[in-house]
Amino acid sequence: MRAAIYNGPHAIEVGERPDPVINAPTDAVVRVVLACVCGSDLWYYRGESPHDLGAIGHEFIGVVEQVGSEVRGIAKDDFVIAPFIYCDGTCPHCLAGVTSQCVHGGAFGNHGIDGGQGEVVRVPLAGSTLVPVPGSGHSDETMRSLLALSDVMCTGHHAAVSSGVKEGSVVAVVGDGAVGLCGVIAAKRLGAARIIALSRNPPRQALARDFGATDILAERGDAAINAVLEMTNGVGVDAALECVGTGQSVATALAITRPGSMVGIVGVPHGVDASIAETIVFRNVGLRGGVAPARAYIPGLLADVLESRINPGRVFDFETDLDHVAEAYRAMDDRRAIKSLIRIGRKETGR
Amino acid sequence: MRAAIYNGPHAIEVGERPDPVINAPTDAVVRVVLACVCGSDLWYYRGESPHDLGAIGHEFIGVVEQVGSEVRGIAKDDFVIAPFIYCDGTCPHCLAGVTSQCVHGGAFGNHGIDGGQGEVVRVPLAGSTLVPVPGSGHSDETMRSLLALSDVMCTGHHAAVSSGVKEGSVVAVVGDGAVGLCGVIAAKRLGAARIIALSRNPPRQALARDFGATDILAERGDAAINAVLEMTNGVGVDAALECVGTGQSVATALAITRPGSMVGIVGVPHGVDASIAETIVFRNVGLRGGVAPARAYIPGLLADVLESRINPGRVFDFETDLDHVAEAYRAMDDRRAIKSLIRIGRKETGR
Repeated sequence: MRAAIYNGPHAIEVGERPDPVINAPTDAVVRVVLACVCGSDLWYYRGESPHDLGAIGHEFIGVVEQVGSEVRGIAKDDFVIAPFIYCDGTCPHCLAGVTSQCVHGGAFGNHGIDGGQGEVVRVPLAGSTLVPVPGSGHSDETMRSLLALSDVMCTGHHAAVSSGVKEGSVVAVVGDGAVGLCGVIAAKRLGAARIIALSRNPPRQALARDFGATDILAERGDAAINAVLEMTNGVGVDAALECVGTGQSVATALAITRPGSMVGIVGVPHGVDASIAETIVFRNVGLRGGVAPARAYIPGLLADVLESRINPGRVFDFETDLDHVAEAYRAMDDRRAIKSLIRIGRKETGR
Repeated sequence: MRAAIYNGPHAIEVGERPDPVINAPTDAVVRVVLACVCGSDLWYYRGESPHDLGAIGHEFIGVVEQVGSEVRGIAKDDFVIAPFIYCDGTCPHCLAGVTSQCVHGGAFGNHGIDGGQGEVVRVPLAGSTLVPVPGSGHSDETMRSLLALSDVMCTGHHAAVSSGVKEGSVVAVVGDGAVGLCGVIAAKRLGAARIIALSRNPPRQALARDFGATDILAERGDAAINAVLEMTNGVGVDAALECVGTGQSVATALAITRPGSMVGIVGVPHGVDASIAETIVFRNVGLRGGVAPARAYIPGLLADVLESRINPGRVFDFETDLDHVAEAYRAMDDRRAIKSLIRIGRKETGR
């Protein structure tokens, strides 16, 4: 089968990989229909984080081709969403709802596990990992939103949940990437009364507004901090979603959140300063978040996607096919794309 | 009047200061009965944090001598607890329960505000700051616990509340100083089923056990992390109280807390590493706490002190008078004392 292969920074190509097979009785083999590129993929793409050479991509939806003898709840031909981390559903962390820290879990597309940016994926612990999607014949719009549930929408939701957004909250979303935009959706869905989106990019500003942002701020750094404080009568927001991970964005989020409140952080930290400890203590602002427990969130969000109450698939503003996967990365790296979708129809070459 | 004066690192003496008077109609003047030294006082005592030269001490209880014309709810001769930060009770942060971040608030014993380690203190915003203590003729044991409510017990409680301790929680308390020991009291009071106290000092270990610790760990660093994980079947604790503030103690607290849970941090950060951001994200462990909103906590804790359900005054294992205040600092600096109490009876010299 064909799959995207990471050969090092800025070097991604399509290559041949062995067809995945059932290795363990809890495995399934899934034929990928749609995949996408994550903002976090850009860290290794740019050489800023380590990553094994080989298979990549951790977001995909597809059709089950085969299941192992111990897989329950998932059957051949099911159409499924794969959360970006597989999990056993029974360990203490899974039982506590933190499926992203499953004792037996792991991520797709690294450390020898098949990547989602390929034709076929072996899914470990399939019965407790994959989420079957009810119905059939979903529109392309719905399909794109289902794909968003594999990671980006769950990650934006995790930022919102971690920051404690509730009915009537005044919220700020730091970051206008796909995660930040999904954070706007999540904040709105949780009842936020006011959503201040920090963005200086007109198309992203427009999408943020469509998703529920009530205010757009183009400022960054101290100017952004001052502006948010001014907009909130000096108090700060009830909850901030940190969806970037840089030193500046984390510092901004901590500075604009009112004492006693939380910053929900889902950005992968890069260049974050040690001074955050002092800010947390001296401003009485908390920091919580991390790797989204997508498997735990998908069922609730799925209902909203299927009934068109949320439409996170709109973050995909670039699309291509597996042959052009390198271009999917380049478009995001150049910030020409918010998020790149990859249509993966297996080519039946008669092999 | 006489008061402790900070003249620079390791240089504390008793000096004469002008008698405090009512400056604003919201002020009260309080004659101090008992004061004490805070672990955070040691930072400037040791020259590790900046501090204005002059009055020091932010924990005291005493008797109201005089009130301004606009003070409500507090009257001459009331016996009162002063939370270590004064507050207006009406700003957005006070209304949200975060009195330690009051827009018009400030701390005693720095920046020109009278210190508690003196005979008399001008208390700004007295009506919304001071907490009157019902009854009279309290035992010395009770008096010591009332003094503990001005800061240390509230700070331990804040660590417990911030970490989310609830009925049945498995808790770890990092730090066996007075705050950590009060954290044990607070965790027990909130219903923790198991309390692991990290301490290598036998008298503190004994006090921790008396306060409700079920397990004592003498290990530090990686050995402590491994031990806590082993004690919790590899899962980690439901809540950790960080009551030290060093890089090692914060790292330990973050490492022993189970994913999805919180570390309640009340230690003043010194030497904390930037890597905490990555730990927070990649372990899904939150960090929240800060300066305890003592004014908001005192009423609830006061009832428990007056009915002898908690006895935080036991953290005072050294006592002296104002003349010997320098020795109160030395005893804590040398770790001969957990916490030093200072009895302050004004000397009537006929001036």
